[in-house]
Amino acid sequence: MKGCGPVWIEGNKWRFTVWSPELTTMSLHIVAPSQATYPMQKDDEGYFTVDCDDVSGDTCYFFQPDDDEDVPDPASHFQPNGVHGCSAVVDHRGFKWHDAAWRGRPLRDLIIYELHVGTFTKAGTFEAIIQRLDDLVDLGINAIEIMPVAQFPGKRNWGYDGVFPYAAQNSYGGPVGLQKLVDACHRKGIVVILDVVYNHMGPEGNYFNKFGPFFTSAYHVPWGDAINFDQRWADGVREYFLSNIEHWIVNYHIDGLRLDAIHTIFDSSANHILGMFNRRASELRDRVGRNVFLIAESDLNDPRVLTDYKFDAQWLDDFHHALYVLVHPEAKKQYEDFGSTYHLAKAFKDGFVSTGGFVKFRKRKYGASSAGISGDRFVVFIQNHDQVGNQVLGERLSSLVGTKELMLSAAALILSPYVPMLFMGEEYAEDAPFMYFVDHSDKELITAVREGRKKEFAHMGEHEPKDAQAESTFLESKLRWDTRRDGDHGKILQWYKELIKLRRTLPLFDKRSIHVSVIAPRCISILHEEGICIFFNFSSVEVNYSFEEGKWEEIFASERSGSGKIKPVSVAVYTTL
Amino acid sequence: MKGCGPVWIEGNKWRFTVWSPELTTMSLHIVAPSQATYPMQKDDEGYFTVDCDDVSGDTCYFFQPDDDEDVPDPASHFQPNGVHGCSAVVDHRGFKWHDAAWRGRPLRDLIIYELHVGTFTKAGTFEAIIQRLDDLVDLGINAIEIMPVAQFPGKRNWGYDGVFPYAAQNSYGGPVGLQKLVDACHRKGIVVILDVVYNHMGPEGNYFNKFGPFFTSAYHVPWGDAINFDQRWADGVREYFLSNIEHWIVNYHIDGLRLDAIHTIFDSSANHILGMFNRRASELRDRVGRNVFLIAESDLNDPRVLTDYKFDAQWLDDFHHALYVLVHPEAKKQYEDFGSTYHLAKAFKDGFVSTGGFVKFRKRKYGASSAGISGDRFVVFIQNHDQVGNQVLGERLSSLVGTKELMLSAAALILSPYVPMLFMGEEYAEDAPFMYFVDHSDKELITAVREGRKKEFAHMGEHEPKDAQAESTFLESKLRWDTRRDGDHGKILQWYKELIKLRRTLPLFDKRSIHVSVIAPRCISILHEEGICIFFNFSSVEVNYSFEEGKWEEIFASERSGSGKIKPVSVAVYTTL
Repeated sequence: MKGCGPVWIEGNKWRFTVWSPELTTMSLHIVAPSQATYPMQKDDEGYFTVDCDDVSGDTCYFFQPDDDEDVPDPASHFQPNGVHGCSAVVDHRGFKWHDAAWRGRPLRDLIIYELHVGTFTKAGTFEAIIQRLDDLVDLGINAIEIMPVAQFPGKRNWGYDGVFPYAAQNSYGGPVGLQKLVDACHRKGIVVILDVVYNHMGPEGNYFNKFGPFFTSAYHVPWGDAINFDQRWADGVREYFLSNIEHWIVNYHIDGLRLDAIHTIFDSSANHILGMFNRRASELRDRVGRNVFLIAESDLNDPRVLTDYKFDAQWLDDFHHALYVLVHPEAKKQYEDFGSTYHLAKAFKDGFVSTGGFVKFRKRKYGASSAGISGDRFVVFIQNHDQVGNQVLGERLSSLVGTKELMLSAAALILSPYVPMLFMGEEYAEDAPFMYFVDHSDKELITAVREGRKKEFAHMGEHEPKDAQAESTFLESKLRWDTRRDGDHGKILQWYKELIKLRRTLPLFDKRSIHVSVIAPRCISILHEEGICIFFNFSSVEVNYSFEEGKWEEIFASERSGSGKIKPVSVAVYTTL
Repeated sequence: MKGCGPVWIEGNKWRFTVWSPELTTMSLHIVAPSQATYPMQKDDEGYFTVDCDDVSGDTCYFFQPDDDEDVPDPASHFQPNGVHGCSAVVDHRGFKWHDAAWRGRPLRDLIIYELHVGTFTKAGTFEAIIQRLDDLVDLGINAIEIMPVAQFPGKRNWGYDGVFPYAAQNSYGGPVGLQKLVDACHRKGIVVILDVVYNHMGPEGNYFNKFGPFFTSAYHVPWGDAINFDQRWADGVREYFLSNIEHWIVNYHIDGLRLDAIHTIFDSSANHILGMFNRRASELRDRVGRNVFLIAESDLNDPRVLTDYKFDAQWLDDFHHALYVLVHPEAKKQYEDFGSTYHLAKAFKDGFVSTGGFVKFRKRKYGASSAGISGDRFVVFIQNHDQVGNQVLGERLSSLVGTKELMLSAAALILSPYVPMLFMGEEYAEDAPFMYFVDHSDKELITAVREGRKKEFAHMGEHEPKDAQAESTFLESKLRWDTRRDGDHGKILQWYKELIKLRRTLPLFDKRSIHVSVIAPRCISILHEEGICIFFNFSSVEVNYSFEEGKWEEIFASERSGSGKIKPVSVAVYTTL
């Protein structure tokens, strides 16, 4: 973990390090509590180092590349005044943990809950989340996945504009706030997964080029130049991100990391960085004595993400697409490659739906089969921050489909042979939207974001997206906890609880023992060899299923009927007597 | 093989096809022997097709994308008037083959000879090569590797500026010339390997963008945009190159292909195109009933090229670098990461020398170990077209080092546990240089090449490279066969013959049974468990080696001495009695 923030040596002595392989001079500029400047020494690997006395958790500093202007530390652990301000020393020894007995949980046991810190609560802080953990436990949740918290510009952001991958967002409560949250989660048996972004940096407060070749023009990604994982001086960049994994797991007791869009990480090395990320996580598992895992967001439809790079799991977007088009007729416009009940059946049985055939959306053949890979290697969802937030008005699934469709979708999610993930508020059909919001200070950037959003949705018709920069867009996106037990909200909440309870009783992940069939138009059955049969009827007609007489019993259904009659738009679960 | 040149249907009826997925109209314009224009029909995959009567091997044609101007066929099998002229139909049924009994040879048996058609003989044609095949057989050669012959602009080119990957160069004698050469080779037991370029197209006569997205800005390669193997419509591009493999193997009876610089081929697909190339070659092996193989030029130092993508073999540049710096002191400037005798020992034993450590030239850690991979998966050389041609004056190894060093290098090559490859003229220490030459017609391009060459060599000191566009540069690069038996030329020629003869008696490829040691400064021994010991002494002093008394006999040496005395700058081979 070299060049990854100030490190305590002894007493008040700390070592400051920064990687800058192509510069010849670098200074450390301490700005608080008192002022001082120290020249730094460069080593063969391109790291500048200096040891300083009289340093504490209050010390604020900048680096001065080429001994020129002040620039914050790219590996800053805290940016008390935001992305353009000084970096602050963080003394991680200061936090008293209460989770010594915590060993984590295996992925196969998880019910994940994705949340965005700023909009999950009114206060929008790490600590405010703690008050809601009992609600999550009561629901049956045992893992939260926190959208990125790396310091971003301003106070409002989804997190994907972060520019300090080692610094917990100041407006969320900074390092100590996050440590308190993780500690509280562990005490309640909740796994904490953190969303991290290793494929790009945000546009504002991005000082990386002042230090070294963090980016490369060899590969073009949606945000411009790709992160440099394989060109000149890439070792420093690789170590910067490898150590970031260690940082969150060791200093913050994070259990798992969700890596954003790994399909925009390019590396032609003999040792692919994605494989190295997983090797590092695996080493850490042994070191910290609890389960540690990495989950990939990947749109590659490539089983090698799991088999070669050895991610513990990856998101299964195809499951969402296949299900969404069955419950929401208009979705077909957006997901032109989906629409058949067989797609969802394939998603249930094999995982990837696009497995080598022509994909209209991509205008090429795409993917390879993931058949045979264990179900606990895939995370599924019926909505996540992207699918909600990328609707023009941030509409949740509950705003788009009826209650029956919603209940059926929830059942398909929770009773799937995969690791289910809910998006905050989904459990009670939250009415508030989840919109895209930012809080930039650069005026050109604000205009660019506004124009970009309008253009993105121009072809979608009547609505314009709300102003991403406006605080109101952020405030409207906050969860409205008060309504969660009212009417249909309460009914859905109860439904999720029952589903999660039921899931705990089912054997799910052994794909070899399940048989998925389309038994009637728009109706799927999943027969588990252990003697359980789940019916998902997406059609508007009742489906009759002939069981061997007297051998099967309906144990659960969104609309009870018994004896093999599956009501329109409903789920039913049968077991052998 | 769709969209890969005109295909005979019956009688005089031929089908013309061209891939152009984003255009709506396309015409075929027959220009000789008579004129006619035919509208083409587009199918779902983006191929335009039309069937025409009255077509023969004399028919010349253009396509008209958007029904606009004449453009030659990107999959033309012949460009009789060069890269800007019409395409010609080639009736491959017209050639009578005499190699029905030919089954090819396994890679492990090959002694490869790389040649450039234009400079190998005075005439510079495919057919002129035939006259020299007996010389090669006499030397011990049983495989030729032909530098690229895909139609390039003008009459003089190394071949890497080709723009018609399916068309054999007109100035070399076109399709029939190449077929005659391959047929003659097979009758003499010579394998034919063709160098093909699937990573870029040349700058002049490059009409690909008129048809479709052959290139993508997603990846940046030394020539600009990369070939599009994984973006929208990539299927057509993939099939274009996959079929190219089939084209050369089926229509020209080529035995093996050498793929140029595969490290500049990028593909994020679940089915990597490099693996698909090898799967296609493997299928063809069964279909044509002779050994068919692919060899990669790769600078990735990545064993996955062989283990995952399953190339039959790859070039081992590290062997060249490690050896070159031992025989040529100035080479250290060019290859700063090499210089130790241990590097050559590692190359002999394991293959790759850069296996994960920091490489100064690349300013990063590079490569992974290839230890344990069989020796017949690597092709080695002490010079090739690149290393000679990239010297400022095109100097061969024989112009740079003394006769002893040359003989020792030749021995290290031929007695290595790899597949050796000679560069034409190497066998008799040819005096003629091999320089970089082109014959463009675009004036700006000519200027750009001239400026580029000057700039490339500016830091090297006193010499300027010769004008690449001048015919004299090409003519001076031709082999001077007449001198090959004179003085030292004849001595070297005899030495190569003896070495090749000796090699045939040695067990080489089982890496598990060899022990490579540095037994004295700059002196390496390779002990084969079968009872052979080869000494390569690169030092200027005699090295003494203590054998078990009376058990070992010197059977071969550049300077005979016997009883374990290895003369300075010499090779010696011992066997157990």
